Amino acid sequence: MKTFDEALAYLLSKAVVTSYTEEIEINTALGHILACDIVSELNVPPHHNSMMDGYAVRADEMVEGKVFTISQSITAGTIGKPLQRGTVARIFTGAPMPMGADSVIMQEEATDVKGGVKFSASSFRLKQNVRHIGEDIAKGNTILSKGHALRPQDLGLIASIGVKKVTVYQPLTIATFTTGDELLEPGEQVEAGKIYNSNRYLLAGFISQLGLKLIDLGRIPDTLDATKSALTQAATVADVIITTGGVSVGDEDHIKPAVEALGHLDLWKVKMKPGKPLAYGRVLDTPFIGLPGNPVSAFTTFCLFARPYLLTMQGQAEVVPKPIWLKAGFDWKKPGVRREFVRVRLENQIQGNASPTTEVVLYSNQGSGVLTSTVWADGLAVIPENSIIKKGELIAYYSGR
Amino acid sequence: MKTFDEALAYLLSKAVVTSYTEEIEINTALGHILACDIVSELNVPPHHNSMMDGYAVRADEMVEGKVFTISQSITAGTIGKPLQRGTVARIFTGAPMPMGADSVIMQEEATDVKGGVKFSASSFRLKQNVRHIGEDIAKGNTILSKGHALRPQDLGLIASIGVKKVTVYQPLTIATFTTGDELLEPGEQVEAGKIYNSNRYLLAGFISQLGLKLIDLGRIPDTLDATKSALTQAATVADVIITTGGVSVGDEDHIKPAVEALGHLDLWKVKMKPGKPLAYGRVLDTPFIGLPGNPVSAFTTFCLFARPYLLTMQGQAEVVPKPIWLKAGFDWKKPGVRREFVRVRLENQIQGNASPTTEVVLYSNQGSGVLTSTVWADGLAVIPENSIIKKGELIAYYSGR
Repeated sequence: MKTFDEALAYLLSKAVVTSYTEEIEINTALGHILACDIVSELNVPPHHNSMMDGYAVRADEMVEGKVFTISQSITAGTIGKPLQRGTVARIFTGAPMPMGADSVIMQEEATDVKGGVKFSASSFRLKQNVRHIGEDIAKGNTILSKGHALRPQDLGLIASIGVKKVTVYQPLTIATFTTGDELLEPGEQVEAGKIYNSNRYLLAGFISQLGLKLIDLGRIPDTLDATKSALTQAATVADVIITTGGVSVGDEDHIKPAVEALGHLDLWKVKMKPGKPLAYGRVLDTPFIGLPGNPVSAFTTFCLFARPYLLTMQGQAEVVPKPIWLKAGFDWKKPGVRREFVRVRLENQIQGNASPTTEVVLYSNQGSGVLTSTVWADGLAVIPENSIIKKGELIAYYSGR
Repeated sequence: MKTFDEALAYLLSKAVVTSYTEEIEINTALGHILACDIVSELNVPPHHNSMMDGYAVRADEMVEGKVFTISQSITAGTIGKPLQRGTVARIFTGAPMPMGADSVIMQEEATDVKGGVKFSASSFRLKQNVRHIGEDIAKGNTILSKGHALRPQDLGLIASIGVKKVTVYQPLTIATFTTGDELLEPGEQVEAGKIYNSNRYLLAGFISQLGLKLIDLGRIPDTLDATKSALTQAATVADVIITTGGVSVGDEDHIKPAVEALGHLDLWKVKMKPGKPLAYGRVLDTPFIGLPGNPVSAFTTFCLFARPYLLTMQGQAEVVPKPIWLKAGFDWKKPGVRREFVRVRLENQIQGNASPTTEVVLYSNQGSGVLTSTVWADGLAVIPENSIIKKGELIAYYSGR
């Protein structure tokens, strides 16, 4: 038996970052992982500029009611002349401040008069309404680090320093296949004693969600030779092989002996619930992960083990999700020897005029055969080993991403 | 001025669900929105079955140490014969229970002996280790409703009832273009007074993240005619037009008069920060959303207004994110008349042996020109209108997903 933490630490220690990178345009880079730091060669903004439509002034020259000549007009994208003493410049949002001006008075506080413009007294504050050079990004700063997964705002930030292409890790290719005589594929006729294959579609969804490529070798005949041949093919085409089922102790499946014949396999009973059996090994030189066959266990172990493992190989720096500590909305009375990952939702409880309290609420049936629980849930919460939980105590909640 | 809630309610009241649906295979359906309910035509599991490798027995016949004949062996995918009285059946995980058996004893509690098998006393509990017919899904139940966005576990659940194709809404097409003489595109040479276009890439990232199609009409010359012609083209090819910038009061841009000439436009000052100016209207018959030009405001208003609007049109049922109420890790001393959406991270504070507390931590520079804040942040937190916040008080946090 391995504890959850031991199993995860071991697995991550075995994950080697892919060495394949590629340069791609930022408008196709969403979800990709940066393969190098991004350092800015310029200041953003590149110059002091106006936050408002208004007038660029020297604050120490301002007197209420005095009429100032408008000596120039500066729009965004143009460069003004140095501001003549005793005058003001019409200026628009984003336009560079003219040399000598230190403040912007917004147009709502200005009155057009013959020969120029006058201002109300409330509006004379030094440096007001000015955005400063390098305020967002200073030249030489690292704006994003190697290992970062690119979100829309990251793409905007990269664009803002004029960078058009980024070097990212090439998406991993994952191979899988299905074994098991008891399985029907969706669309096939119901047959007595058989059940529909759900893990194949769960896994395909997860792989697609991570932006990885899936090679699904389909249904493999339930013989040792066919299984070995599928594994060999998978090892040749993919960076990682993932299968579900066939790795329990005493299992009659051919996966175990086939992996052992072609490489090696460690079978673990992880002290967690759901999801006890987990297999990790190699087929030829390709990593192999065997998830439990039970769909809820497959779901949980994919989220908690396979995802961090794959993201590490994919080059992502932070792969283990951070929990949010929230109040349990339930009592947990029966301590268990295994760490339990329960399917939960968040609910906001409103109490009079006070701020609502966010509580973690349990799905009614935590049975490991009930895939409905993962569909109902917003995420997973942790019941630690050998523990009871009293309603209102803080527990660790992991969003279903 | 509109309050935030008024603006959002108005916008959502104008969003009409697309009428275009398509039937697609579940292995390509991740992220799509269901256009009809999914009702199960069968029970999952389809039969009582064993949760373990072990022995199917009649619990009331069990006596410690008594030797039972093994009358049959039932593997997953096969149907056994009714269980003869006084015998047990070898059974494997997932295999249907034979008629008459009501309990499974796991193999670890069985000992092979001459002529059969005997069991230890601790293992005789009625109905133990049996998964019941329809425990996950009962025949006739709606497993997923119209308007649901499909996640990996949803695809697994749909597969488990044998369904291969689902009817989803066709992804919306969004058109955008860029105006503004002050903008350079990434990759272009730095030019004095100009800044790089970041909103174009921010927007492209968001549209891609939502699984929508983007038609980017590129850079449009800064004239009224060119802007009208771009808007007309956009209205013809897209379901929604989104632009950034050019919609502030007093703005010199051509977008406002062009939209007004081709349809109509409402300009709102929303009582929120960042993100005050927001425009909503129609170009010919196509909805038009004008986000602020400031990148942080564009980010915030996309998340808070455009995303729920687009998801509603896309058919999603729940579009307004649910907050999590968490402790503020800061004091907010200056009440503002506008609702403020601050860029924040979550941090877990560890105090001795107690459970950690999750706190909401502010980015140091909440300036609306600082796109870095959105990159640093995990999400947004809300400072209500006219309010101060004391460290430790609960505030609403929205994950940046």
